Formats: sequence, C-alpha cells, structure tokens
Amino acid sequence: MLILQTVDELKGWVQEAKRAGHTIGLVPTMGFLHEGHLSLVEKAKAENDKVVMSIFVNPAQFGPNEDFDRYPRNLERDQQLAKGAGTDVIFAPGVEEMYPRESQIKISAGAQAEVLCGAKRPGHFDGVLKVVTKLFHLAEADLAYFGQKDAQQLAIIESLVADFNFPMAIRRGETVREEDGLAKSSRNVYLSSAERNEAPHLKKALEMGRALVLQGQDPIEPMTQYLSEHTSGKVDYIELLDYPTLTAVIQNDAILALAVQFEKARLIDNIIFQPKGELDHA
Amino acid sequence: MLILQTVDELKGWVQEAKRAGHTIGLVPTMGFLHEGHLSLVEKAKAENDKVVMSIFVNPAQFGPNEDFDRYPRNLERDQQLAKGAGTDVIFAPGVEEMYPRESQIKISAGAQAEVLCGAKRPGHFDGVLKVVTKLFHLAEADLAYFGQKDAQQLAIIESLVADFNFPMAIRRGETVREEDGLAKSSRNVYLSSAERNEAPHLKKALEMGRALVLQGQDPIEPMTQYLSEHTSGKVDYIELLDYPTLTAVIQNDAILALAVQFEKARLIDNIIFQPKGELDHA
Repeated sequence: MLILQTVDELKGWVQEAKRAGHTIGLVPTMGFLHEGHLSLVEKAKAENDKVVMSIFVNPAQFGPNEDFDRYPRNLERDQQLAKGAGTDVIFAPGVEEMYPRESQIKISAGAQAEVLCGAKRPGHFDGVLKVVTKLFHLAEADLAYFGQKDAQQLAIIESLVADFNFPMAIRRGETVREEDGLAKSSRNVYLSSAERNEAPHLKKALEMGRALVLQGQDPIEPMTQYLSEHTSGKVDYIELLDYPTLTAVIQNDAILALAVQFEKARLIDNIIFQPKGELDHA
Repeated sequence: MLILQTVDELKGWVQEAKRAGHTIGLVPTMGFLHEGHLSLVEKAKAENDKVVMSIFVNPAQFGPNEDFDRYPRNLERDQQLAKGAGTDVIFAPGVEEMYPRESQIKISAGAQAEVLCGAKRPGHFDGVLKVVTKLFHLAEADLAYFGQKDAQQLAIIESLVADFNFPMAIRRGETVREEDGLAKSSRNVYLSSAERNEAPHLKKALEMGRALVLQGQDPIEPMTQYLSEHTSGKVDYIELLDYPTLTAVIQNDAILALAVQFEKARLIDNIIFQPKGELDHA
C-alpha cells in the first residue's frame, strides 16, 4: 500500500493507473477509521481495480467553535486498518497541500443544507463540497463511496455530481453499527462510559419513531421525550424529511434523523425507510 | 466531423476516445463563430489528439434584461467553419439537455467578479462557471481553450481550475482582430454601419491608455474623453487592474479593459501588458 502526501504524487499515481486502464474507487475519510469506513473500502475493492482512501481532517467543514483541533487522529493505526481492508493508496495531505491559497471560487450547497446538521452547522456542507470536489478531481475517481450515516452529506454530494456532470458516480454504504445498535463513528471515542451506555437509545428512538410514522403519527415529540428520559445528552434536532431531496413533503423515501449533543461528542444517526411501510410497495 | 446533441452521446464518444488513449482539447463557444474561435480550434488541434467544440448559448450567463433571445445563432454556418478548422466533434445541446433540473449546488465567482463586466452583469460569471464546469466534466478535457478578449472570464476560469484541482489545464488564445483593430466578436454583427466605423477607436483608446500608463499617468479620464469624442457609444467602464488577480494593486501584468454600449451591441476589449514597460523586464 502506498502512502502519498502531496497532490503531485497522487496525480502521478493516478496518471499511471489511468494509462494502465485501471478504474479507481475513492473512499474519502477524515481518518480514525472504524468498520463503517472499512466496509466502504470493501465495496470499492469489489467494484474497482484500485482503491484510493483519502485521510484528511478538513478544516473547511468545521465551524469556529467545533472540534477541528481535537478531532481524533491516528494515522499509524489508520494505515494498518486501511491496508488490511485492501486499500491500494492512502492520500494523506497536510492542510497547506490541500489549500495552498485562499480560494477565489466558492461551491455552495442549496436548500438541502438548510435542514438537519446544515441548519446547525452553517458552512459545514460548503466545506464538504470544497474538499470532495478537489478529491474527486485529484483521484479522477470512477466511483466514490460515502456512508449513509452522514445521509445529508451523501444527498448533497449526489446533487453535486448530478448538477455538474462529474464523470463518476456515488455509491452509498449502509450504516455500520455496534452490536447494541450504536452507529460507528470516529467521535464515539469521546463518549464517557455512562454516555456510551446511553448511546444505543439513539437507534432505539429512531426505531420507535419509524413505527409511529408507519402508524401515521408524528414521531418528533415522543422521540424527544424518549431521548430525554434515556440519555443525558441534549437533543440538537429530530427531523422527518423526504430522502434524498430533504424537503418536508415526503414523495420518495423518508429519512428520520437526529443529533444529540453529549458532553464532548455530538452524535448523529438516521434511518431511511418507505414512509408507508414495505407492504405498500410489495 | 460528428455533431452530438445529447449528454449521453458525448459521454459515449468521450469514453471511446479515452479508451483509445486520445487526449481531448475543448473549445467552449456560444456559436456564431469568428476567427477568434477558429484560432482556438487550431491551437487545440496542435496540442490534442481530438478537438471538441461546444456550441451552447448559455442562458445561465445572461441577465434578465440581456440579449439571450437575440444572441446571434447560425448552427449550419458554424458547422462549416468548425469542420474547416479541424474540429472532430461539435457538442450542441439544447437548454433542457444541459439543465434538465434546477441545480441544488451553486458555484460562485469571488472578488474577481466584482470588477469590469462582473460589476455590470450580476451573476454572469456564476453562469459561466456553471456551464464550463459541466462542459469540462462532460468532455473530460485535458486542455480547454478560451480567448483573451474575455479576459475576466479567462481569469475566473483559471481560478476555478486551480481552486478545485480540475485534472486539466486552461490555454489562453490571443484576441483576434479585424484589420482595423476591432476585436472579433459575435456581437459585432449588431453594429450599425456608422457604429462599425467608430468601433476601431476602442482599440485605439486602449493603446492610448497603455502609453499613458507607461508614462505613469492615469489613463481613465483621457480614454473616456477620447471615446466620447470618437464614438456614439456610451462608456460602460474603463478599468486598469492587475492581471489575472483583477485587484487594484498591479503586481503581475496590467489589464486595461473597457466596455462600450452601442445601440444594439455592447462591445468589450482589453489589452494586457507589463505596466512598467517591456524594458524593465528585459
């Protein structure tokens, strides 16, 4: 497995790979890998000749009061895990390498960023679009892989690719969970042991909410109540929207999504489902 | 020469060309071709295996009171000229083909769009960025060609490519002029015969302005005076800026640029030069 730290090294490798006729799957990450990331590598491995994983904690997607500085990092461990999953190239640039000068041009998310995390983290998805556009171009990826745990990010990146005809496609990876239901996340490491015990209630709240939606009831109040009773965290949002448009009127799938702020970690989770139940579509 | 009208046809052709190991030069145009466009095709022909010319009058870059509807179009004549210059593929999509749905994501020009035409045509360069991003992706161009007559557009597109690491480079084509100095433009056809006789004074005003700059004098007032005496047009702007940053403090090249509104045609022109004279740099 190669570890590349500069744009020029990556471009050189990509040109070689393209000349050899290889397809390239890209798995963009911020490192501190967990099984969610590794499941994306496995998908990429199955669908492409070569797999590039980027590891870059992207300052552009963190707000001034967010956890950029203390976002967990462990490149050595990440290398072992990425290699074990079959990654061919890790691209792990420094901030100066990715952003050598202030950008003149800006890419902005639209209405899809005005709900859920986007409403709480102004500019976050613009920062995501900035870095993924650069990575898609640098890796000349045929396919890029994103987990459904960050469902809003996934939807917005799908819009980017469709709106601007990127010569590539996005692949969705299902959320990977701990045995007790907690969605895998790099930020789980910041949960206290008491919080860690409460955290599976996020998924339970989502399941309860889905059941209510399927019965035609509003899930928001009961879920808020449930989470306040079963966790010490503060509910940041609970929303029921169309997926992937993220509009209020559900015409495709439904997404039920939440964010809960614990003392040192803000966790997000969601489930995507047919709002009228599976039977209606059978 | 192939004439393709759909995104899928173009993508199919591009995949074939890439598989065959061909490099692709892209010449984006709005049609109604003149020798300026054809000189770009010749440059592209010399530097790439295949040359794609897009012909698309892009509604996204016209303001509500601008000349989108009456922008000159003549696809049959364009085809003859493009073929004669060695174009391999014309991509001439309809508006629905390029913009099948409203975009979620927006690309915006920055400070470079706050001067010159950008100050007079709000949103114009955002519309340019939208269409060129799509075209760059669709054609998977190795090189794309733009004329220096639209110097602000060229500078902003160079920023786009650099800021987002597009896997391609921009090539600049010099402004092609009539024998009397008038810059070739699709819009020249809308000049009355009296205006056509006055129009070479735009270039003369620029030359006078350059001479003043090289003498350390401010060129704006004398140029404004000159144009009001020698043409019936209304000066929209005359500006002296750094190129390509388009900032007020000249640290690279200088651009002296103007726009003059005639009855039915708004003409632009510019010259780019070393602000301290050629000798200082010898």
